[in-house]
Amino acid sequence: MATQKYGVGVDLGGTKIATALVDGEGRVLARTSCLTEAQEGQEKVLERMYKTVEDVLGEAGIAPGELAGIGIGSPGPLDSKTGLVLSAPNLGWTNVPVGDLFRERFQVPISVGNDANLAGLGEKWLGAGKNVDDLLYITVSTGVGGGIIIGGKVHTGAHDIAGEVGHIIVQKDGPQCNCGARGCLEAIASGTAIAREAKAGLKRGESPLLAKLVGDGDPTSKDVGQAARKGDPFSTKLLQESFTYLGLGIASLLNVLDPQLVVIGGGVSNLDELLFDPVRKTVKETLGTSQLADVLIVKAELGADVGVLGAAMLVVA
Amino acid sequence: MATQKYGVGVDLGGTKIATALVDGEGRVLARTSCLTEAQEGQEKVLERMYKTVEDVLGEAGIAPGELAGIGIGSPGPLDSKTGLVLSAPNLGWTNVPVGDLFRERFQVPISVGNDANLAGLGEKWLGAGKNVDDLLYITVSTGVGGGIIIGGKVHTGAHDIAGEVGHIIVQKDGPQCNCGARGCLEAIASGTAIAREAKAGLKRGESPLLAKLVGDGDPTSKDVGQAARKGDPFSTKLLQESFTYLGLGIASLLNVLDPQLVVIGGGVSNLDELLFDPVRKTVKETLGTSQLADVLIVKAELGADVGVLGAAMLVVA
Repeated sequence: MATQKYGVGVDLGGTKIATALVDGEGRVLARTSCLTEAQEGQEKVLERMYKTVEDVLGEAGIAPGELAGIGIGSPGPLDSKTGLVLSAPNLGWTNVPVGDLFRERFQVPISVGNDANLAGLGEKWLGAGKNVDDLLYITVSTGVGGGIIIGGKVHTGAHDIAGEVGHIIVQKDGPQCNCGARGCLEAIASGTAIAREAKAGLKRGESPLLAKLVGDGDPTSKDVGQAARKGDPFSTKLLQESFTYLGLGIASLLNVLDPQLVVIGGGVSNLDELLFDPVRKTVKETLGTSQLADVLIVKAELGADVGVLGAAMLVVA
Repeated sequence: MATQKYGVGVDLGGTKIATALVDGEGRVLARTSCLTEAQEGQEKVLERMYKTVEDVLGEAGIAPGELAGIGIGSPGPLDSKTGLVLSAPNLGWTNVPVGDLFRERFQVPISVGNDANLAGLGEKWLGAGKNVDDLLYITVSTGVGGGIIIGGKVHTGAHDIAGEVGHIIVQKDGPQCNCGARGCLEAIASGTAIAREAKAGLKRGESPLLAKLVGDGDPTSKDVGQAARKGDPFSTKLLQESFTYLGLGIASLLNVLDPQLVVIGGGVSNLDELLFDPVRKTVKETLGTSQLADVLIVKAELGADVGVLGAAMLVVA
C-alpha cells in the first residue's frame, strides 16, 4: 500500500449506509453514516450515498481528484467488473448500475464488491490477517458467507459467486436451506439455523433453562449461548453439533484452498469459545497429521467497521 | 503463449517416466519414456529422468539454452517454490531436491508441481479447458484429486496442498479414508472406494451378475460399470450413490471457487455417462436457479498425455 493515496469506502446495508475516507494505510481520516431508508426508492438511496462521500471529502478537505477511487460494498449478486448490482432484495433493487452512476458523479475509479468478500479484504489488510496474503474469511451471522483472499485480492470467480462457503453441502439430505438445497452449512451452523433448532427444542420441552431465558419470545443464537454458559445440556449440545459441522466445512475448505489463515467474523462469532472450541477441535481431528491442521483459525478483529474498511481497501490496497 | 519458446515436461510416475519436448503452443516435437524402477534407488531414477530430457533435446536438435525451462510433475507432497519433493511413498523418496538437481544439471528454469495440479494445467492449455482461464479439474482414479486453475495458473496454496478436493468431507462419520478422516469424497467416489463397496456387496451375495463377471478376482470400478451396463441393479445403485456424492462435492466446490468449467479426468471418468449423468443431475438439482447450475462439467481430453503436457505447460504457458 502506498501512503500518499486516499480512498473512500461505502458500505451499503439494508439499514445503514456507512462511509469512510481512509489513507493508503487504512487509517480513517473521516467517517459518516446515515439510514438507508430503502423504502424511499433507489434514487434517494443513491443521493444519500453520494452525500456521505461528499461529506467525508469535505470534512478532510480532499478533492475527488485526489482519490485512488471509491469502493462500494453491496449486498446481493452483482457484477464486480461493471459495478452493476443485479439484485438486492433487502433494498428492492434490480439491475442498478451503481458503478456507472458513481463513476459519472465523481470521475474516479469505482469498484463494487460483495459484502462478505470485502469483509475478508478488510481483515486481510487491517484486521486479523495483516501478516498474510492468502486467507479464508467466514462470516457466521444470519447466514454463512465468505471471502477468499488470494495474494491480497478477492477471488471473485467467474460469476462473482466465489466464496459462498455457506452453501457447501455438509449433510446430504440435511435441513432445508433458503437456497433450495438441503444440508448446506448455512442451514446448520448459521444464527438462523441455531435459532430454528432451539425453537424446535423448546417446543419439545427440552430446555427449561432456555425457556426461562427467552420468556415469550423466540430464542436467538445468543440466547442459546447464554444458556450453554449456564450449563444447559440442550444448548451446549446444539452449539457443539452445529459448530462441529462448521469445523468439518472448514476442514474441507482448507484442503481445497490451502490458505495461510482462517478468520471467522459475524455476530455468531461473538459466542467466542463456544464456537471456536468445537470448530478447532473438529478441524484438528479431521486433518490429522496434515500441515493444514496447524493453520490458525482466529476471530475477526474489525467488528462493525469491517464493511466500510473492506470497501475502502478495494481501491487503496 | 509465445510460439518461439520450447519447454520440456517430465512426468515422474511410480511406474513410468514420460518426457516430451513441446513448443510454445504445446505441440509435441519429441517424446520418450522409460520405466521408473524406483527400487534401484533415487540416483538411478534421477539419471533416467535426465537422460529422457537429453534424449528429447537430442532428437529435436535443440540445446538446453533454447528452453524456457523444464517442468516436472511429481507425486507426493512437495514444495513447488524450490522443487523439493518432501515425500513420495511410491518411490521411497523423502526430501529429494529435484528442482535444485535439475537446475544444476541443465542450467535452465525448473518448475515442479503436483501431478493432479499439472493435469489441470494441461487441460486448461491444451485440453477441454482451452477456451477458459479458470477451471476446476478433478481426477477420479485410485484416489480423487484436483487442480484449481485461476487465470491460467495453478492455485497451489500456502503449503502446496490446494486442490485436494478428494478430502472434502461429504458424509459426516462416513467411510474411513486413507488420510485418517471419515467421509472424504475419496472414501466414497474413488475407484478404490467403489471396488471396496462392490467387494462387500459380493460377499453379501448381492450381485450374481457382478460375481460371474469377476470370477475369482476382486471387482474393480470398471467391472462395476460393466455390470451396470448389463442392467445389474446392485452395480447401478452403487455407482449412482457414489457419484451423487461426487455431484454434491462438485456443487460445493462451485459455490466456493466459481470456475468457468469443471473438467473430470482419471480412469474412473471412462465410465462416461454412468459417472457424468448422476454428477450433472445432482449438481443441477443442488444449485437450482443459481448461475452456477449452468457451469459445464465435461470429460478431460488429454488422456494419458495429461501429465507430461501439464508439466511442460508449467514452463511454456
